[in-house]
Amino acid sequence: MKVSLIQMSVAPDKAVSLRHAGELVKSAAGADIIMLPEMFCCPYSTESFGRNAEPVGGPVTQTLLDFARETGAVVIGGSFPESDGGRIYNTCLVTDAGGILARHRKAHLFDIDVRGGQRFRESDTFTAGSGPTVFSGPAGKSGVCVCFDVRFPEFICKMRGVNALFVPAAFNMTTGPLHWELLFRARAVDLQAFTFGCAPARDERGPYVSYGNSIAVSPWGRVIARAGAGEEVLTVEFDPEEALSVRRQIPVGNPV
Amino acid sequence: MKVSLIQMSVAPDKAVSLRHAGELVKSAAGADIIMLPEMFCCPYSTESFGRNAEPVGGPVTQTLLDFARETGAVVIGGSFPESDGGRIYNTCLVTDAGGILARHRKAHLFDIDVRGGQRFRESDTFTAGSGPTVFSGPAGKSGVCVCFDVRFPEFICKMRGVNALFVPAAFNMTTGPLHWELLFRARAVDLQAFTFGCAPARDERGPYVSYGNSIAVSPWGRVIARAGAGEEVLTVEFDPEEALSVRRQIPVGNPV
Repeated sequence: MKVSLIQMSVAPDKAVSLRHAGELVKSAAGADIIMLPEMFCCPYSTESFGRNAEPVGGPVTQTLLDFARETGAVVIGGSFPESDGGRIYNTCLVTDAGGILARHRKAHLFDIDVRGGQRFRESDTFTAGSGPTVFSGPAGKSGVCVCFDVRFPEFICKMRGVNALFVPAAFNMTTGPLHWELLFRARAVDLQAFTFGCAPARDERGPYVSYGNSIAVSPWGRVIARAGAGEEVLTVEFDPEEALSVRRQIPVGNPV
Repeated sequence: MKVSLIQMSVAPDKAVSLRHAGELVKSAAGADIIMLPEMFCCPYSTESFGRNAEPVGGPVTQTLLDFARETGAVVIGGSFPESDGGRIYNTCLVTDAGGILARHRKAHLFDIDVRGGQRFRESDTFTAGSGPTVFSGPAGKSGVCVCFDVRFPEFICKMRGVNALFVPAAFNMTTGPLHWELLFRARAVDLQAFTFGCAPARDERGPYVSYGNSIAVSPWGRVIARAGAGEEVLTVEFDPEEALSVRRQIPVGNPV
């Protein structure tokens, strides 16, 4: 089972970003699963979210369906600003050759204000989704959530039983060094599942500086692979059965 | 606010262990909180649990009440095999000069079987407790649980709002290197609280080899201090207010 994490640079122009994503996705052909980062189609800023919002079925959806058809992979489609009924969501679509497999709307909006560090208020633009999202894919039962969602153990553990958790994300230069690896390792141990985080490449000149460091962690909590800061396609092989084995060896599935 | 973690050697004889604990607790006088390790009064083995079981009010309780009266500290009394109505629990008593502040019965029994590593079945001897335990102490609202409990995020997060989580524990040479530091850092970030783990000193000749490495972690998930493998009194200063500050900067208290 092979997964490729597309740690890509995001351009100010949506069409340019979609085209660039296509080139990188093509280079990952052969992978069973291909994941894009949070907001792979537009810069991570309040102004950009509003300007680039589009409904499911728009250009981003069509692009993600194309990626799946062209590669034969399941595509964890990063995220895009999804407009629906006057609201905007931070949405991840999962596609395969047959169509849309799953849609996850980020359920916990990224509203933080760290003293001397990062400040952001997603809730100025976005509406929150209402729950976790599980789908059946090449790795068996799988979960998908977006970035800040990974900080909420009660929410993550509603997905118990998944073999893999896919998290398009964009930590920053405050939260990345503090918590990126820790959270992906912790959730791997909590769920006894593989966890995968895919981030945009770092761009020091952008409005929001992504930490990068796309990551793959085993159900034992061991880091399998981790990207650097720049653009990179990180490909990892893994065996979803290992998740079942860990759950038998250290059973933690029945909390009081 | 000062906490001392008593990473002590445990003797086969209960009276010897209680006496030895007393010497180390005396050396920690001046701390606001003093914590002992899981099963500080008897070796960690199925046979030993049965042989050393006693009710609340027995010699272990009296010793813990004495420790609190003599030092003026709140004592997180590690754990002991508590007999009650024909059952045995793995129980932590919290005492202060006024009496028993809290009682936690380990809610998740340590039944693991790691290939090529540690095997143990607490459920051969123990009955599980039924929920988390919160008390009001020198650090404000505080949580206490025992060892394996710390692996269950759903359970731990029922204690949201605590400033500190105290965990008498005894990880081993399989689970310690894998998950000890990871779990204490993860739960600190999950709860946005200080976490403290206190383990027995390592004894390579014992029936169960403790990992040691008693640990203190900040609400940011940073390791403040960590003991080695041998006997050691680890004393740490911390400010419980820091937990409130972190919760304001990165609010994660309302999971979907």
